[in-house]
Amino acid sequence: MRLSQYFLPTLKENPAEAKIASHRLMLRAGLVRQTGSGLYIWLPLGLRVLKKIENIVREEQDRSGAQEILMPTIQNADLWKESGRYEAYGKEMLRITDRHGKEMLYGPTNEEMITDLFRNNVQSYKDLPKNLYHIQWKFRDEVRPRYGVMRGREFLMKDNYSFDIDKEAAKISYDKMFVAYLKTFARLGLVAIPVRADTGAIGGELSHEFQILAAEGESTIYYDKAIESFDLKSLAEDISPDIIQKLQSIYAVEEEKHDADNCPVAKENLRIAKGVEAGHIFNFGTKYSEVMNAKVSGSDGSMIAVEMGSYGIGVSRLVGAIIEASNDENGIIWPEAAAPYKVGLINLGAKNEECTEACDALYKKMQAAGIEVLYDDRKAGAGQKFATMDLIGVPYQIILGPRGLKNNSAEFKIRKTGEKTEINLDEIVSKFI
Amino acid sequence: MRLSQYFLPTLKENPAEAKIASHRLMLRAGLVRQTGSGLYIWLPLGLRVLKKIENIVREEQDRSGAQEILMPTIQNADLWKESGRYEAYGKEMLRITDRHGKEMLYGPTNEEMITDLFRNNVQSYKDLPKNLYHIQWKFRDEVRPRYGVMRGREFLMKDNYSFDIDKEAAKISYDKMFVAYLKTFARLGLVAIPVRADTGAIGGELSHEFQILAAEGESTIYYDKAIESFDLKSLAEDISPDIIQKLQSIYAVEEEKHDADNCPVAKENLRIAKGVEAGHIFNFGTKYSEVMNAKVSGSDGSMIAVEMGSYGIGVSRLVGAIIEASNDENGIIWPEAAAPYKVGLINLGAKNEECTEACDALYKKMQAAGIEVLYDDRKAGAGQKFATMDLIGVPYQIILGPRGLKNNSAEFKIRKTGEKTEINLDEIVSKFI
Repeated sequence: MRLSQYFLPTLKENPAEAKIASHRLMLRAGLVRQTGSGLYIWLPLGLRVLKKIENIVREEQDRSGAQEILMPTIQNADLWKESGRYEAYGKEMLRITDRHGKEMLYGPTNEEMITDLFRNNVQSYKDLPKNLYHIQWKFRDEVRPRYGVMRGREFLMKDNYSFDIDKEAAKISYDKMFVAYLKTFARLGLVAIPVRADTGAIGGELSHEFQILAAEGESTIYYDKAIESFDLKSLAEDISPDIIQKLQSIYAVEEEKHDADNCPVAKENLRIAKGVEAGHIFNFGTKYSEVMNAKVSGSDGSMIAVEMGSYGIGVSRLVGAIIEASNDENGIIWPEAAAPYKVGLINLGAKNEECTEACDALYKKMQAAGIEVLYDDRKAGAGQKFATMDLIGVPYQIILGPRGLKNNSAEFKIRKTGEKTEINLDEIVSKFI
Repeated sequence: MRLSQYFLPTLKENPAEAKIASHRLMLRAGLVRQTGSGLYIWLPLGLRVLKKIENIVREEQDRSGAQEILMPTIQNADLWKESGRYEAYGKEMLRITDRHGKEMLYGPTNEEMITDLFRNNVQSYKDLPKNLYHIQWKFRDEVRPRYGVMRGREFLMKDNYSFDIDKEAAKISYDKMFVAYLKTFARLGLVAIPVRADTGAIGGELSHEFQILAAEGESTIYYDKAIESFDLKSLAEDISPDIIQKLQSIYAVEEEKHDADNCPVAKENLRIAKGVEAGHIFNFGTKYSEVMNAKVSGSDGSMIAVEMGSYGIGVSRLVGAIIEASNDENGIIWPEAAAPYKVGLINLGAKNEECTEACDALYKKMQAAGIEVLYDDRKAGAGQKFATMDLIGVPYQIILGPRGLKNNSAEFKIRKTGEKTEINLDEIVSKFI
């Protein structure tokens, strides 16, 4: 993409309303714009990041054997009255009345709808296990939306729901998601600590949150440093049941649950860190299937309420979480997997015909090779171009000016380290494929 | 995908509530399930089709130079009060009040929001033209939702918005979309007639609807048979300005606008057909930019209200429209571009070990070659398997049984024509890549 034609409104100043790094940087780098309290428009650059993350989440769901469906954002209130949550959910639920006076709501989660889908379409134990997911916009009417997309009202969530014939099978489904989540966060270059969690409005007994370590995170977590030995950032393809068991039993809790006097971990082994919640998994047994009568016939013909779990990843929230975990004073530093473009190409001689021709040719060559490249072809000063590309945070930069061109070379810069080296123009394409 | 594990609840009987072919077939083939009035859940098979269509729409938008963004589904009412449409829009707008009593709405379209985004972020004629699109769920509170996804309340729409400095540039943007729409429908194997249309609630003077020819379509259109000479189903890469001009000026109107006594087309050249509206484009000049003060500085420094257009394709509606245009008494007949899978593999000997081994091996080989294949590995009778595969409507079927296996051959069936031929097992993969 040519920057001169791109709809990428960047800001030089820090917006006053933005209190944390990710919010500031998402506005400044032109990833999003606010259009109402807790409502954001994703601009082209931000949408690219959102989709990259969404695709990684999707791939790991597919790999786990879960099947993708898509439920509507608007739900009938009837289902929630059946489960008993319509009154219980409180003011975070956006309640709506349609033209005929029917009570509806904007889904904050989908346990009821999927349980209804299941009971209407699955009758036998032979059809189990099933795990269905969708990636859809949700709405929670937060009393004070803040921190940009980190605590917006309309947000993109991947949520899925598992159905099993008994508790043992349900634990297997839970563990599969536990692993899928670890792999998802690892692919995004994040350290996510699995934290034993409360089940809150969802219900059930077994639950983990995944907390992304970030200096300005909203949660404070206490955990056994033993967890660091697992190298969560580069988890291997296969995670053995043994390791799952260890990861689930290591001490890791949020501040509210930490009791210094009764902590099983010795003081010298205890870590305290800030985190951003990016995922949450629940095994809640028959809480919904009993009350909503989601039963299948078992092998002996008896009717059995299915064991269920639900699993959520805040996809739009992850955009903010990644920035919280990876930025510096100049801007965002994208991990490659989530980067909107892999390479930024800077033309330092945009008013110089020869240099512009060389940059144009290089841009076309990179595009033809399938390299995702953002080309700063604007007639602007070098300082402005450097600042913009650092702010946007693409992992690699190629900087080409009239002087370098004489030696058929450009500058190659790694955004994360700031390291710069010279590179021959003919070697650039092969460097990135 | 193995059918034995797939979440694909098919129905043998026609559901009583479904009055048209697409609605009947989408329920029967397990593409969707209703979860409320005009609200549908997309099941795995239906979602695959929806995404294929969405991607073709996206590719043609990208190719036209439009840039993708994503606006939220929920909008502040303030913007609509500014444009004057908040009261004007009527009961189809789903109006919502949040926990603080603020008036909001579920977007039925986005002219106001995008005009606001534009005025806040674009200041100069140098940044024009711009064309921004998004693919997002919309809500229109239809008084009587019907025909399945063809007239649902929550539906997926691609809508974009063009911004130009003057009328001449705006017409160029309009024509680009006109061409992008023709190409989009052609790639989906559809004949779409561009029909001169009223501008209704959107406003403006120049507008075309794209009507997909379908026997049970809800619109009746009258058009000059000259339009058939353009072979709309296989439009070439480049459509010249001359052809655009001709296509836009050929007589084609909806019934309400047709006046038999004053029709410019001779009776023998007039065609009457049923159609489904699948797209609508508008050039509405400065209707929103004037009232919402979306102005840029011109080359002489004066402030100029931008010329705008908006363009919509009903992405979820297209799933129904394609089925309306392409089905028979046995089920759906997918055009390849929209098909959920390219090939259906039927194991006729699911209880025969040797045959199952051969089918499993073939399935793996096809998957490894990147062929999208749906494998009916169920322990069910041949009749049921044939009926299911015809109902689902994948373009090609490979039918393998113990008898054929002895000759190392299977049956190759083309769903559209019903034509069956023998095929050597070793030639199957190469046939589909």
